[in-house]
Amino acid sequence: MIPIAIVGASGYTGLELLRLLSEHPLFQVVAITSRELIGKSLGEVYGFSGRYRDLRFEAPDVERLAGKVKGVFLCVPSGSAHEMARPLLEREVKVIDLSADFRFKNVKVYEATYKLTHQASDLLDIAVYGLAEIYAEEIKRASLVGNPGCYPTSVLLPLIPLIKEGLIEEEGIIVDSKSGTSGAGRKAENYYSFCEVNEDFKAYKVAGHRHTPEMEEKLSHFSGREIKVVFTPHLLPINRGILSTIYVRFRRPLREVHAFLESFYRERPFVEVLPLGTYPRLSEVRGTNMCKFALFEDKERNQGIIISVLDNLVKGASGQAIQNMNLMFGLPEDLGLPKSPLFV
Amino acid sequence: MIPIAIVGASGYTGLELLRLLSEHPLFQVVAITSRELIGKSLGEVYGFSGRYRDLRFEAPDVERLAGKVKGVFLCVPSGSAHEMARPLLEREVKVIDLSADFRFKNVKVYEATYKLTHQASDLLDIAVYGLAEIYAEEIKRASLVGNPGCYPTSVLLPLIPLIKEGLIEEEGIIVDSKSGTSGAGRKAENYYSFCEVNEDFKAYKVAGHRHTPEMEEKLSHFSGREIKVVFTPHLLPINRGILSTIYVRFRRPLREVHAFLESFYRERPFVEVLPLGTYPRLSEVRGTNMCKFALFEDKERNQGIIISVLDNLVKGASGQAIQNMNLMFGLPEDLGLPKSPLFV
Amino acid sequence: MIPIAIVGASGYTGLELLRLLSEHPLFQVVAITSRELIGKSLGEVYGFSGRYRDLRFEAPDVERLAGKVKGVFLCVPSGSAHEMARPLLEREVKVIDLSADFRFKNVKVYEATYKLTHQASDLLDIAVYGLAEIYAEEIKRASLVGNPGCYPTSVLLPLIPLIKEGLIEEEGIIVDSKSGTSGAGRKAENYYSFCEVNEDFKAYKVAGHRHTPEMEEKLSHFSGREIKVVFTPHLLPINRGILSTIYVRFRRPLREVHAFLESFYRERPFVEVLPLGTYPRLSEVRGTNMCKFALFEDKERNQGIIISVLDNLVKGASGQAIQNMNLMFGLPEDLGLPKSPLFV
Amino acid sequence: MIPIAIVGASGYTGLELLRLLSEHPLFQVVAITSRELIGKSLGEVYGFSGRYRDLRFEAPDVERLAGKVKGVFLCVPSGSAHEMARPLLEREVKVIDLSADFRFKNVKVYEATYKLTHQASDLLDIAVYGLAEIYAEEIKRASLVGNPGCYPTSVLLPLIPLIKEGLIEEEGIIVDSKSGTSGAGRKAENYYSFCEVNEDFKAYKVAGHRHTPEMEEKLSHFSGREIKVVFTPHLLPINRGILSTIYVRFRRPLREVHAFLESFYRERPFVEVLPLGTYPRLSEVRGTNMCKFALFEDKERNQGIIISVLDNLVKGASGQAIQNMNLMFGLPEDLGLPKSPLFV
Repeated sequence: MIPIAIVGASGYTGLELLRLLSEHPLFQVVAITSRELIGKSLGEVYGFSGRYRDLRFEAPDVERLAGKVKGVFLCVPSGSAHEMARPLLEREVKVIDLSADFRFKNVKVYEATYKLTHQASDLLDIAVYGLAEIYAEEIKRASLVGNPGCYPTSVLLPLIPLIKEGLIEEEGIIVDSKSGTSGAGRKAENYYSFCEVNEDFKAYKVAGHRHTPEMEEKLSHFSGREIKVVFTPHLLPINRGILSTIYVRFRRPLREVHAFLESFYRERPFVEVLPLGTYPRLSEVRGTNMCKFALFEDKERNQGIIISVLDNLVKGASGQAIQNMNLMFGLPEDLGLPKSPLFV
Repeated sequence: MIPIAIVGASGYTGLELLRLLSEHPLFQVVAITSRELIGKSLGEVYGFSGRYRDLRFEAPDVERLAGKVKGVFLCVPSGSAHEMARPLLEREVKVIDLSADFRFKNVKVYEATYKLTHQASDLLDIAVYGLAEIYAEEIKRASLVGNPGCYPTSVLLPLIPLIKEGLIEEEGIIVDSKSGTSGAGRKAENYYSFCEVNEDFKAYKVAGHRHTPEMEEKLSHFSGREIKVVFTPHLLPINRGILSTIYVRFRRPLREVHAFLESFYRERPFVEVLPLGTYPRLSEVRGTNMCKFALFEDKERNQGIIISVLDNLVKGASGQAIQNMNLMFGLPEDLGLPKSPLFV
Repeated sequence: MIPIAIVGASGYTGLELLRLLSEHPLFQVVAITSRELIGKSLGEVYGFSGRYRDLRFEAPDVERLAGKVKGVFLCVPSGSAHEMARPLLEREVKVIDLSADFRFKNVKVYEATYKLTHQASDLLDIAVYGLAEIYAEEIKRASLVGNPGCYPTSVLLPLIPLIKEGLIEEEGIIVDSKSGTSGAGRKAENYYSFCEVNEDFKAYKVAGHRHTPEMEEKLSHFSGREIKVVFTPHLLPINRGILSTIYVRFRRPLREVHAFLESFYRERPFVEVLPLGTYPRLSEVRGTNMCKFALFEDKERNQGIIISVLDNLVKGASGQAIQNMNLMFGLPEDLGLPKSPLFV
Repeated sequence: MIPIAIVGASGYTGLELLRLLSEHPLFQVVAITSRELIGKSLGEVYGFSGRYRDLRFEAPDVERLAGKVKGVFLCVPSGSAHEMARPLLEREVKVIDLSADFRFKNVKVYEATYKLTHQASDLLDIAVYGLAEIYAEEIKRASLVGNPGCYPTSVLLPLIPLIKEGLIEEEGIIVDSKSGTSGAGRKAENYYSFCEVNEDFKAYKVAGHRHTPEMEEKLSHFSGREIKVVFTPHLLPINRGILSTIYVRFRRPLREVHAFLESFYRERPFVEVLPLGTYPRLSEVRGTNMCKFALFEDKERNQGIIISVLDNLVKGASGQAIQNMNLMFGLPEDLGLPKSPLFV
């Protein structure tokens, strides 16, 4: 077994890592940290049963962790992870950071977006962007992975191959995304209270969400020219799931674009390009590490429409992180990760 | 128009009073208070349109309010209302308190239950329990009304007439209630966050909820002997509504009990005893001031089962408060109060 | 009182008309029809209380209705209404059709869209499109009104004034809409079953929804040139509400566009243009006849974004129908229509 | 691998079996049947990915199945399974029936409850009731298992040990249960449509649910005297989960009863008796095969209250069925079954 720690395990991505790793045959979580819950067990606080029920939260002492694990998942807020990575890397612990701290190549974009000074910007050179379907080879050799944002995952998986291949126009990309409320994290605020989310629906951070520069940096990289993305996130009254409706212009006939994308992802276990005419829905990916998308065209209006779905806590966060950790340890990327959904 | 104030208007019962009073032909809300929102309008903070959109929150200065209104709804926490009532009453302002401060006749029970010392226990003598269907005559003459709890309303409306008439056993009453989350008030806590209420269901305060002594005091009063009620509340992942499943033993055949109850409430606009064999559901009372109940019998097991539904924010709080205010001002009790549900 | 009938009253728009008309001071519903529920009362079948509880469904005999009412709401499927209107109009009954049968000026577009032959296409000349904020004067004089679709209402209210005034580009309009499930009507299908909508989210009829030609005809009319709209509807796991995210290009600075729209709607009771920087949400319009919208701009990407919300059963259907009926009978357009929301 | 078939795989219990068996290391589903979906794949119809994505539905030909599998899960309606079991058993295929057909020992009770004539009542003698925690030894030797009902599982797991040990009174047991909507199966009916379940809550089949005799037969068996249970089921607006609030009278002090139950289940992987003072909730068992319960006492009112939770599709149906199949094939009972919940 490979010993693993989760730093910041009391939030939704930490708990989802624990759920998923309960079924993993080779990773063994030996430490979980939380400043508030020191000494308490997963069973007591979150009602976990099974493999990790009696695991107790400890203080986030990175040095100590480095002595007992071979891999660490950092589930701390953006701005807290950059200082934790170095001591772990120095002791040859592989690190996957679920915050934004190691997602960007351009530190200025990161600092402008997150309004922070990066304390370990030299590490950005060795950090690999953990979009496993695109960067698998780099991830296998990486010691530090910046796990992608949930929205960018849903957008980049369909768009990167199309941009690389020149199959869509670089201009005029609009992404209209809808996310389940767990995407906001575990927050004790009226805005996220049951009565004020349930039966409601709202957009937020229009023209200002932090995931926009992340998408743009990656797309621009593969395009060779600067790409801009209009991005509008919305809050869905459900727990899990992201559906992104992506407006693009195809440069080739729909069937051709579809055939290319299908063949691009044919061998990848976690991406499915749906047959033309089929609609993806969140229930088909619930609880799984799948990302699925479908392509549509409004010919009369010359508009391509791509609809992409994933479970924000799995493929959009913890599942993709495990996929990356699998790759970093030379394991099959789908080891221990679910593909069959909770249909209801 | 009769000028009215709402003290503590920023919570769910305050907002529901404002929604309902938007349609009231004679009460005019001229002041709303909130310590946190002073100077802000209902439109700004809560997106209200219509009649009260531009009404602004002010500080809760009871003396000043007394000079400009004829009636006040107190929507403050239990323990805050008892001190506010007196100055209002002294200036001949009619007061309806939506907290528990004026619901009890026995101050010791109140103090033990709410772990508070009552600062105006002399007023308990003149306070009337605002269960409008039972105390209409007293309410008409009252200057101070203690508006009933949401759970007790759903339980006392069916049980009081049956207890008075001796149609059920006094022993062994069990109330299993389920309430929408708005019943907990506006709370910024993880326990009430969307992700942790949605798709979940849980009991709380088993054998220790504060509404138990309220039910018991009223039932005992009408029985003449001490009545005990086992009460188990549960939290429903919906915004509004209470359904109480009440286990009793009938002393007379079901049809007879049903006929009595039906005739008891025949003339009352807000109570409906459903035909035998019919099930009540929350959607039938959503947004209305109705309380409906149905009677069942498991003959083989000698068990009577009464199922009662109401909208906890309307008949369980703000609607019943307006019904009481109508009575206190000599108006028809159903003036301005909705009876037709939002079926979906 | 003005006697009114509702034809096809057993669906969600019919029931919502009945809820709203329960509070109307001048319209009196005297007949409701449903082929399946003949003889049954609203109280029995839908648990209604109050004013219309004992009203019984009758067969949809238009001739007979014409003898006893002055206005009729047709809540039948598209394709059933065109044949019902004429006999009513001949007997001087005012007709509001909630289906699509009288929404189009160009019968060919209607027939191509709905795959039907219009049996009363001559009436299209006298039918007025019931978008009350735009066509109030025509509606006042009309005997036949085609009540707008729910999605078009949310889109046309913000766009028509901007198109008329030339403040947005005619090209490249994209509408990404999300609707509560009641918008699909009352349907006994697995696709709309609780377990398969709850916690799910999905797009449908991409590049092929029937409301697209309706929007395009109206926008083109006000533009003077043909306007195309890319429209993508999605199904929200909530009962009520439409939020449309509309992507346009402003021709003038945001503040100017905003000021124009605000002044355009200043006197209209049911439209609110929110202050810049404010987000609309469905809870603010729940149960009301309001439509609210907010304007945003992504300057760096030269994109205008308009977010529009309404309650699909009220302003998107039954409320707007009553607003139209008010106008047709010379009443204030907001008579009996709610503006204050069920905040929770 | 052990080849397995699922008969009637297109409903919720069938799909849940497929989800769970996707992770099972030894059972291989080689056939799924559905009369309506012959020739269609799980991927096409239900959006499954992973192990069983390309598995296609076939006609339910029991003879043919018997030739290729060693175990069969029957997910057909009660009344359809009794005729399918015999040909399978004759060919030495192990059978787990998820309907009620093999749950009862007394065929008359079955026939009266289900209003059917049992076509294979002789098999009731060899059928074992699949409550794995109670009948593990019998199940290991069984060829035919009647998988328990979802409600009975939640009630019998806490009550059977208490009844056997004489720790509760046999009289006056009341069970107030609340179930997620998937418990009703996949049904295209208005009663189960999204808009009419969402934000609603209702009791159903009061004093007449088919699971009452199932509970009573099992409890009576362990008591030695006839036990009656008052049972009231309710429909929760969530997909999954059952919470049963069980009212009993303890014969011994709470701590003693609790200690007994805890020790009774200490070694069982899927039952957890919570520490005193702790509340169970549905989110803690979501997606898992766990059943958890907590004991409370209202001392003043001499009432014991047991609250029991499980996921109706897992421990209440498909998970328990796999647990039984594990036992029948001599495998560890928890092989391939999840214990860690989807916390959100």
